[in-house]
Amino acid sequence: MQNPPSDRVQLSFDELRNLIAGIFECHGTSARTAAILAENCAAAQRDGSESHGIFRIPGYLSSLGSGWVNGQAEPVVEDVGAAFVRVDAAGGFAQPALEAGRALALEKVRANGMAVLAIRNSHHFAALWPDVEPFAREGLVALAFVNSMTCVVPHGGHRPLFGTNPIAFAAPRSGGDPLVFDLATSAIAHGDVQIAAREGHALPEGFGVDAQGRPTTDPRAVLDGGALLSFGGYKGSALSMMVELLAAAITGGNFSFEFDWSGHPGAQTPWTGELLILIDPDRGASRPFAERCEHLITRMVEAGQERQPGDRRYRQRARAEREGIPLKAADLERLRALAGR
Amino acid sequence: MQNPPSDRVQLSFDELRNLIAGIFECHGTSARTAAILAENCAAAQRDGSESHGIFRIPGYLSSLGSGWVNGQAEPVVEDVGAAFVRVDAAGGFAQPALEAGRALALEKVRANGMAVLAIRNSHHFAALWPDVEPFAREGLVALAFVNSMTCVVPHGGHRPLFGTNPIAFAAPRSGGDPLVFDLATSAIAHGDVQIAAREGHALPEGFGVDAQGRPTTDPRAVLDGGALLSFGGYKGSALSMMVELLAAAITGGNFSFEFDWSGHPGAQTPWTGELLILIDPDRGASRPFAERCEHLITRMVEAGQERQPGDRRYRQRARAEREGIPLKAADLERLRALAGR
Repeated sequence: MQNPPSDRVQLSFDELRNLIAGIFECHGTSARTAAILAENCAAAQRDGSESHGIFRIPGYLSSLGSGWVNGQAEPVVEDVGAAFVRVDAAGGFAQPALEAGRALALEKVRANGMAVLAIRNSHHFAALWPDVEPFAREGLVALAFVNSMTCVVPHGGHRPLFGTNPIAFAAPRSGGDPLVFDLATSAIAHGDVQIAAREGHALPEGFGVDAQGRPTTDPRAVLDGGALLSFGGYKGSALSMMVELLAAAITGGNFSFEFDWSGHPGAQTPWTGELLILIDPDRGASRPFAERCEHLITRMVEAGQERQPGDRRYRQRARAEREGIPLKAADLERLRALAGR
Repeated sequence: MQNPPSDRVQLSFDELRNLIAGIFECHGTSARTAAILAENCAAAQRDGSESHGIFRIPGYLSSLGSGWVNGQAEPVVEDVGAAFVRVDAAGGFAQPALEAGRALALEKVRANGMAVLAIRNSHHFAALWPDVEPFAREGLVALAFVNSMTCVVPHGGHRPLFGTNPIAFAAPRSGGDPLVFDLATSAIAHGDVQIAAREGHALPEGFGVDAQGRPTTDPRAVLDGGALLSFGGYKGSALSMMVELLAAAITGGNFSFEFDWSGHPGAQTPWTGELLILIDPDRGASRPFAERCEHLITRMVEAGQERQPGDRRYRQRARAEREGIPLKAADLERLRALAGR
């Protein structure tokens, strides 16, 4: 990796992933959890999902240090039906729980046409697209729902209740990487509010309220006792409510407003649940799904939507594979210090 | 039913349903299809979903008369997996196809924890909530997706491609009728544009464009070669794209832009597909789902969201059960004439 500007460095994906895994292991996770979280975090950084890349590491470490999340948790997988897998994340992170349930869920969807993977007692502090993209690479359609922590005011209400509650979707296409979207049902993702606050940018109108419930464009006012609004008015609010029910009530997890981390100063990771729905898209169709998906995209491009969901991530990924993942030299120093290197 | 104003009449649900069934039978449907469509249409009228009540009957009849939709179609149900039912609607309406697949889908979700019901080759011209509410009354969580006909511009595009592509969701609650929403992924439902045009109301800003792609608030300009926009910007557009893939590509149906009804003047019913996802919500949880749902609603009310999705329909329904379903006398005359009475 050559000629970066002196304050920038370029790392390969493996270098960044191994460095991050070392940080997690240094801070109390098992080697398995460290490897899974590091893969996720390095992938977000590589793909330009900055709000879920190395920016998140201090939050992870703070939560681990507070004793709020169990970095050593061993997920427990239960087979509860021909189309239903449940996983108790045992107070650990959602990603190792998903990894633990993956093989059984894949077996079920291939055998029976669809499956649900219901994760509870889990902490999800990452982007959601990494949870669905791999299933599309297996030829499946995947939907994921995760609730988070109270920060969104229900439509017409005056107090926050829902989390940012993202929905992610992935589908295979015959002519390229899977079609993937990951959208917060809040008007803005919490990580993007944090980045705006850090960088001193204002938020667009209609995205948030301050601690008194008044509309504000100041990201610090939103973070300091304020709250977010849902996207698209009552429709986004209905979808956010649906995410609470799918990700928490069906799984046996906590609603976004149910957990109490006050006894764990420094806790930052929401302790909720996650639901994945996996469908074999060729089971019901007469024409190959991936070709049908490609045809839809061709027509979307013709209608003038030139950029498809996920395109920016894939472009950043290709660039990172050629040139390395760009980091500020100071950030790399901080990461090395956290890893004790 | 007593003392209506002289230009208004009140019918019982059974009276209205039987009248509508007679209309459908008079216009070429089988008795079974007539009964199912009449139940659906009368329920929408009863519940105050005016855009999907008797307002729709001329469109149904026009499509039937054009030979575009087969009112005598016999749906074919196929068992294609422990969690997957597919139904060929055989060019008929989606509701009889759903009815035909219901028992097998219920058997599968009860036995295996979840099931998908994939309907293709179907015409859906009704509200979507009647498709999911009955499953919630069986204790299940249900999601439905249906694509329709090209009238929504993809985000960033300049030509319509997607349909209004609604998503419906239903969940049981322990303290009342199921929680149900039915939302178009367009900024406004097509039926509401038709009603605004008929009644001479303007549309809100940002809901539609005219035939030249220019923003307009005139519902007639939208209907006359114009198009709708999706709700919530790129997020609603991504969801609309997802509905195309779920309802058409997975089922083996047509995308909203694929069918050509030009050989059938008067055709109005979109010939696409519908996907239902059914989940047994107690399979993955440790606490009864319906109680968890009730708890969420209690907290939503406390946060200031006093009206829940579906509340208005249930209030109208209760009132109609007490007082009858109000119709204009002239509308009743028209319905009777259509039924040959």
